[in-house]
Amino acid sequence: MKGLAELGEFGLIDHIRARFPQPVAPELGIGDDAALLSPSAGRQVVVSTDLLAEGVHFDPGFGPARLLGRKSLAVNLSDLASMGAIPRWFFLSLAIPAGFSLETIEGFLDGLAEQAAEHNCILAGGDTCGSKGGLTISVTIMGEQRPELILKRSGAQPGDDVWVSGSLGDSALGLKLLMEGVRLGGAHDPLLLRQLDPTPRCELGLKLAEAGLVNAMIDISDGLLADLGHICEQSVCGAEILLGQLPLSPALYTCSSKQPVFPWPLVISGGEDYELCFTAPRCNREAIQKISKTAGIPLTVVGKVTNSRQVQAILPDGTNFQPSASGYTHF
Amino acid sequence: MKGLAELGEFGLIDHIRARFPQPVAPELGIGDDAALLSPSAGRQVVVSTDLLAEGVHFDPGFGPARLLGRKSLAVNLSDLASMGAIPRWFFLSLAIPAGFSLETIEGFLDGLAEQAAEHNCILAGGDTCGSKGGLTISVTIMGEQRPELILKRSGAQPGDDVWVSGSLGDSALGLKLLMEGVRLGGAHDPLLLRQLDPTPRCELGLKLAEAGLVNAMIDISDGLLADLGHICEQSVCGAEILLGQLPLSPALYTCSSKQPVFPWPLVISGGEDYELCFTAPRCNREAIQKISKTAGIPLTVVGKVTNSRQVQAILPDGTNFQPSASGYTHF
Repeated sequence: MKGLAELGEFGLIDHIRARFPQPVAPELGIGDDAALLSPSAGRQVVVSTDLLAEGVHFDPGFGPARLLGRKSLAVNLSDLASMGAIPRWFFLSLAIPAGFSLETIEGFLDGLAEQAAEHNCILAGGDTCGSKGGLTISVTIMGEQRPELILKRSGAQPGDDVWVSGSLGDSALGLKLLMEGVRLGGAHDPLLLRQLDPTPRCELGLKLAEAGLVNAMIDISDGLLADLGHICEQSVCGAEILLGQLPLSPALYTCSSKQPVFPWPLVISGGEDYELCFTAPRCNREAIQKISKTAGIPLTVVGKVTNSRQVQAILPDGTNFQPSASGYTHF
Repeated sequence: MKGLAELGEFGLIDHIRARFPQPVAPELGIGDDAALLSPSAGRQVVVSTDLLAEGVHFDPGFGPARLLGRKSLAVNLSDLASMGAIPRWFFLSLAIPAGFSLETIEGFLDGLAEQAAEHNCILAGGDTCGSKGGLTISVTIMGEQRPELILKRSGAQPGDDVWVSGSLGDSALGLKLLMEGVRLGGAHDPLLLRQLDPTPRCELGLKLAEAGLVNAMIDISDGLLADLGHICEQSVCGAEILLGQLPLSPALYTCSSKQPVFPWPLVISGGEDYELCFTAPRCNREAIQKISKTAGIPLTVVGKVTNSRQVQAILPDGTNFQPSASGYTHF
């Protein structure tokens, strides 16, 4: 196989283009100064962007490049899911260290193309360059939705139920295991894969938005406490979370039962769950459970929105839990 | 002044948000999972993205951070200019090394805010994180235009004039001087500023698009030969450039007259000119010169589009010039 230096920047761009289906006319994708896109009439354009830096967001030694490719798009898809938007196009920028193997790039593109195909999302452009540091991946995603269906952080009402999808803490525990040296191919795979290959809840987010049952929604990337905190901040309210009601996976239970103290910080502040957290009036419980059943994704009431300006976490014994930190610190 | 670590990720985001005017309702900018944007009816969305990596695209020692902020947006604005699109929104992602000074970030944001205000372009979202390598800046820009006015690379016709705006080679010569240790504050400022603070030709690009006089357009970022090559590739044609007709600045002339050989490679392959290169039927010459006069930007015919599949550069003595490389090599 050709090396990256031999392929060159334009060779790499041609190579990437060949791997992804291109926009159909009159749209214009990779190969001009800019992409031309035609959002559907009457819909707003929903845009999100995420930067993934080697040594900060990922360690290439933790798993195959294919999963890194899947995750690079997944974290952006998750942002669209939390707004109830339909994914349409994405842009990929890569800063690649000299001597990086083309095989690794191939694996990365494999995973990216898989995730893109699964969500009908078209690669419409990007940029590639060298890097004096590690690999840096920047993805900007664009989706669309009718304005009246879009779910924001700002709509929560006191008295609303607080819901979460799936289970919490698996990804953070998976990261802890990876940092301890555990790798894929063993009993811990379900936990490791939640960290390495998270599932964006796009269809669920879209169904919840279309059903009009939800007041505010966010995806859990910084941990439930921090992200519910963002909803409360934007909605000028507070919330109360009952830790005993949080949905936990069998894998996390098994692993945590050996610990002297239950790892609540991982569950509520570990982050990277990429589950949806939303608030909805109590009277919508039954309708929301129906959506859960149809989608095949557990949805659980874990607390309620309050009139206070705080997010409180209450332990199963009724006392307040005080976490030492509420999310990842970057600087 | 507070340090970056003390400010934290969300403090930095709040800080950035406070520095830029935000989208007006019903649009939604920084502070939710995604931005909500409403392109004008009947217009296509034009999107471009550029990644700037420390040590690859810029050296923080070459000039003030304010100019780096200006340039980060300028290179993206230049892509929109080359399509004849109107800038609307941009997204900023920063990977910032630990210990980076907040003063530098402030300077960077100053320049970015200046450039954004000059082009009426709204900061609508982004991402910030730590970096184990150098500073990495990713900007995605979105503009819009009526589909029938958008200028692509693919419209060049044999017989067309090849035009360029402004003057070529200043930026590459400026970079050479910077690498030799020359800094701002001396006689070489006009050359250094073409490298450190390029002017995107947005208004000119828009006027040319609206006038309907141009067949194909590109901005010169990789050097005239390489970028005209992109037009020829997409238009399935060739071109002939008369080096003796290339527009050169007095500053470049003065500096180059001391050289034993005229620095043609800098002029045609140095890159980062951020001038426009376009092709137009010969009968439009007078109308295009009128636009040049109104805009106050020189426009020069430098060659013609041919039926061959090559881009040929012809020296003032009539012989073919063969450059050793045609653009910057990333890997």
